[in-house]
Amino acid sequence: MSSGYYKYQLTIDKFLDSGETVFPTREIVYTDKRRYTFKKFAESAKILANALKKIGVKKGDIVGVIDWDTDVYMHLYYAVPMIGAVLHTVNLRYPPELIIKTMLHAEDKWVIIRDDLIGLVEDIKNFNPNIRFIIYNDDKEKIKVDDKTIDFWDLLQGEPKYDPDEEGLKEDMMATLMYTSGTTGNPKGVWFTHRDLVLHAMAMGTISRAPPVELTTRDVVMSLVPMFHVHSWGFPYVALASGLKYVLPGVYNPATQLKLIANEGVTFSAMVPTILFMILAQPDIDDYKPYLKNWKVAIGGEALPEGLARKAREYGIKLYSGYGLTETCPVLTVAYHNSIVESFDEEKKFEIQLSAGVPIPGVKLRIVDEEGKDVPRGKIGEIVVRAPWTTREYYKDPEKTAQLWRGGWLHTGDLGYIDEYGYLHLVDREKDAIKSGGEFIPSLLLETVISLHPSVAEVAVVGIRHEKWGERPVAFIVPNGQFDEVEMRKFLMKKVEEGKIQKWWIPDRFFVVEDIPKTSTMKADKKLLREMASKELQKQK
Amino acid sequence: MSSGYYKYQLTIDKFLDSGETVFPTREIVYTDKRRYTFKKFAESAKILANALKKIGVKKGDIVGVIDWDTDVYMHLYYAVPMIGAVLHTVNLRYPPELIIKTMLHAEDKWVIIRDDLIGLVEDIKNFNPNIRFIIYNDDKEKIKVDDKTIDFWDLLQGEPKYDPDEEGLKEDMMATLMYTSGTTGNPKGVWFTHRDLVLHAMAMGTISRAPPVELTTRDVVMSLVPMFHVHSWGFPYVALASGLKYVLPGVYNPATQLKLIANEGVTFSAMVPTILFMILAQPDIDDYKPYLKNWKVAIGGEALPEGLARKAREYGIKLYSGYGLTETCPVLTVAYHNSIVESFDEEKKFEIQLSAGVPIPGVKLRIVDEEGKDVPRGKIGEIVVRAPWTTREYYKDPEKTAQLWRGGWLHTGDLGYIDEYGYLHLVDREKDAIKSGGEFIPSLLLETVISLHPSVAEVAVVGIRHEKWGERPVAFIVPNGQFDEVEMRKFLMKKVEEGKIQKWWIPDRFFVVEDIPKTSTMKADKKLLREMASKELQKQK
Repeated sequence: MSSGYYKYQLTIDKFLDSGETVFPTREIVYTDKRRYTFKKFAESAKILANALKKIGVKKGDIVGVIDWDTDVYMHLYYAVPMIGAVLHTVNLRYPPELIIKTMLHAEDKWVIIRDDLIGLVEDIKNFNPNIRFIIYNDDKEKIKVDDKTIDFWDLLQGEPKYDPDEEGLKEDMMATLMYTSGTTGNPKGVWFTHRDLVLHAMAMGTISRAPPVELTTRDVVMSLVPMFHVHSWGFPYVALASGLKYVLPGVYNPATQLKLIANEGVTFSAMVPTILFMILAQPDIDDYKPYLKNWKVAIGGEALPEGLARKAREYGIKLYSGYGLTETCPVLTVAYHNSIVESFDEEKKFEIQLSAGVPIPGVKLRIVDEEGKDVPRGKIGEIVVRAPWTTREYYKDPEKTAQLWRGGWLHTGDLGYIDEYGYLHLVDREKDAIKSGGEFIPSLLLETVISLHPSVAEVAVVGIRHEKWGERPVAFIVPNGQFDEVEMRKFLMKKVEEGKIQKWWIPDRFFVVEDIPKTSTMKADKKLLREMASKELQKQK
Repeated sequence: MSSGYYKYQLTIDKFLDSGETVFPTREIVYTDKRRYTFKKFAESAKILANALKKIGVKKGDIVGVIDWDTDVYMHLYYAVPMIGAVLHTVNLRYPPELIIKTMLHAEDKWVIIRDDLIGLVEDIKNFNPNIRFIIYNDDKEKIKVDDKTIDFWDLLQGEPKYDPDEEGLKEDMMATLMYTSGTTGNPKGVWFTHRDLVLHAMAMGTISRAPPVELTTRDVVMSLVPMFHVHSWGFPYVALASGLKYVLPGVYNPATQLKLIANEGVTFSAMVPTILFMILAQPDIDDYKPYLKNWKVAIGGEALPEGLARKAREYGIKLYSGYGLTETCPVLTVAYHNSIVESFDEEKKFEIQLSAGVPIPGVKLRIVDEEGKDVPRGKIGEIVVRAPWTTREYYKDPEKTAQLWRGGWLHTGDLGYIDEYGYLHLVDREKDAIKSGGEFIPSLLLETVISLHPSVAEVAVVGIRHEKWGERPVAFIVPNGQFDEVEMRKFLMKKVEEGKIQKWWIPDRFFVVEDIPKTSTMKADKKLLREMASKELQKQK
């Protein structure tokens, strides 16, 4: 037995402890399939941690998980890092080729996957025959296993005994790993330590009591940010740490989500605008009015369109916005009321709530010019930050890491300004990435695939505003002889089948042009192209 | 300029930053004398930090502060640790001899003191002629200075430029130092790092949104725990971190406190029961009814008497209890509603709120037997803890440190049990310390002083319950010939004048007995003595 001062480690098992001890009867609900009290869940996660060790998962092993927002995923959020292994939250919205690329880059040793998603990654065995699969069926039906495959449900047996010290768990150990795609389709790995996760969740807990949401321990949270997306913005950890009932929606479906809001008394959710758009577009939305007036929604991932926000307000939904990156765990700012805004009238408060917000405790945020100097208040510049929970690096990529962290500040690549009340407003992404439904479409990768067709001499893809999806891609083509759009769409569908791109990446429109306008550095002038596309579409209305 | 990943440090300047950036117009109010916005205060604290450096305060210097709860103290809570120096919060309720003893033990290099308190410590110059005095007058009147003395207000000039990295500030640096007295009157030093303070404040912020208090950023806090007592339970840091208006009451006076509650809209306070008793005993208390019904009170330091709690409830005051030690920064548990209690009826909730509470996030608490093994739920044992913010050691006392941290758990020396809902109940202090008005009276020191009188053959002092003070000391005397109580009181008053003991330590009653009952280890049986005293006083009613 160790003696003397106990050097306490900020590791995520502490949240499990806290939830189990203080809120033993609080619930975790997975759709209408399964429910756990915090006490039961904590025991179950500890049993799983032991079982994973027993089958050979070792400290430092990367464990890829491919799943929707389920009770299984929730278990893994805790059990995998608790034994010193690393939870790789695989982005299942990538095309299969890209999924496998990230898994190979991460050097996943294990894959934990829902049986109906196996098709996405079966090919990985060609690259790494030693990778071990742990599979589960959502209805707990027995998986047909070979000697190398494990049925997940078999692992939930044993003792819940768990001691972080015996595991040698330290707060600076890597706990999670995920990939974020830029314009090139070469996703970059970012990773977080236990300490990052703990501090992020604590800061979120501290500030969630500010107006307009003023969460208490009796609120019920259902995050509608997929669990493969930057820790579902931290809520699976915040819930246990802060005693909040937690609802997991499974496969995303607005009808299911509405039912859960009503049946489980959900009072708070986080999501990208597209999800809110789809929920409010449900034909029976008016039947849910009594529940929606108690619903508070945090929006992130991209700017919240004012029209959508006003529609939500008509249902009594309290709405506010936030901002962050995969690289920042993710939350940096939230549009809660500061000491100035809290005395504004409702309409002005509402407008402020649509901004990107003010830093959450611990975040230091600056707006800088190209030399890294602060611009005056109100002026546009690049957003750079420091926070207790940023990624240290792009995984195995020292060059991009140096670029990210130049001058000792994390460069977001986003442009914005701070208004007179201290609120951040995003102006435009510096990068040419397209974000559709909260997911990046890597424009350079898409351009490469399109350019493979012999009829294309030159191509540029840009994103244009879209009411439902936020942005949608359109392509400008300089043809090589004749350009046939129908033929191109067929060609791209084949690339979808080959797992090179996703179906929803296919541009909504193809514009044939004589040449593509260039910037002074001879790159496609995407700003001008976006304007051209908008004008063209305007004309055609 | 540094480059690459920025290793973020949990240092208390971050709270100043956060307060200034997000809640610039939020106020800090010192009685009716001075007010600051968070922005102004942050600037002022940074100016002070620079000035302290300029006059020669160095990294690692121990800076003793002797003051009531003032704006000056609030500045020092930040400015001193921000330059890597250590804030020694001197307990001015100790007798002067003990105050000086702690300052010599701490090796204070600087004393920052209010001019009307100088009498307490002037003698220290006899022991350490090099100690430098920084003095201030509460009305900003000019201090008559010699060349070795500095007027505090002169330091609030200069630039608010401050960069923790230039200071070389690290989260594991010692930030605060204070002394806690046991029964022997040999106060033990305990100290905390920046990280301890930050994590403690974050956890307090997280849980303060739980019922029954449900604080939001619009609440107004006035801590009535003196700032020389374990960081006023952390509220001077919580306020800036969480955007809460903060009221400083100056010299403690129930009439002033009530006026501040009314005039500044105070909605939350923390205190020992005696303070609440004195406030509710004010003759004009009923005039404050409209304000008291919005007042939420956290009680700690000793058990909350039910009678007092019920009286408070009649005024609509929302009341709950907590538990912690100087050694634990201090908060360990708070009687907020967990997932079981929140559905109880009001009366049962009220009873639970009088318990010591449930652990705040991060605290691991066990009840153990003499071998350090867990006792079954409901059984009495010693409370042992681990938390992210405990003291590492008793300062310069490896022997007592080993005792405190045996088996890798901090031994509180308090007895308690956990009830069926998970709430801690304190049973009795294992030690024989007496706590009166929230302050310890070191019984062994007091016994030694009493025994110096020639008429005393043997003496034992115990604490008995007291409605207002919590406990009051009574003495059992085995006389050496004749015992004259009047003569004894005169003798003890002389010891007060000599600075050996405090006036309020003098026992309320002296019982002359033939012998003092002993335990099996031949120590005074203080449990039995307490019973004897209670019975005797009962009889005399």
